[in-house]
Amino acid sequence: MILVYDIEEKRVAKMLKLCRRYLNWIQNSVFEGEMTNVKLKTLIQEALQIMDEEKDSLIIFKSRDEKWLDKQVVGKEKNDLGNLL
Amino acid sequence: MILVYDIEEKRVAKMLKLCRRYLNWIQNSVFEGEMTNVKLKTLIQEALQIMDEEKDSLIIFKSRDEKWLDKQVVGKEKNDLGNLL
Repeated sequence: MILVYDIEEKRVAKMLKLCRRYLNWIQNSVFEGEMTNVKLKTLIQEALQIMDEEKDSLIIFKSRDEKWLDKQVVGKEKNDLGNLL
Repeated sequence: MILVYDIEEKRVAKMLKLCRRYLNWIQNSVFEGEMTNVKLKTLIQEALQIMDEEKDSLIIFKSRDEKWLDKQVVGKEKNDLGNLL
């Protein structure tokens, strides 16, 4: 799963904290990891409480099988700052 | 293909312009679309000329088959501003 958010500055810290509870932080506003649909629903519900739905957005890409998704990083790779899952 | 960049402000406009030549812009720094490996190599080469590799990054997720990748958008969806491909 890849999660990307586009959130106004003032709400970004809360969203970052929430997403890091569920996923690995790989870039500024990009996270990856695996989670069940139940956990994902919980994450989305929590995210909606932070978001202004008129202005912010959250995009989730789900691959049915990890082996079907290749990742290529160009430039600086963010250190893995720990996945709390 | 999903492309996400994390670029310093002063270089962001150039990168946005480059990526929009190849892909659909779906969120702040997120693009999606399909492209051949040859085109992708060209895109990466052009991107590297814009990027400061010590500071900026570009992540590309490739799914071998589009049907294996589901997309879910929560909140505001960016209008499709046109794909120049």
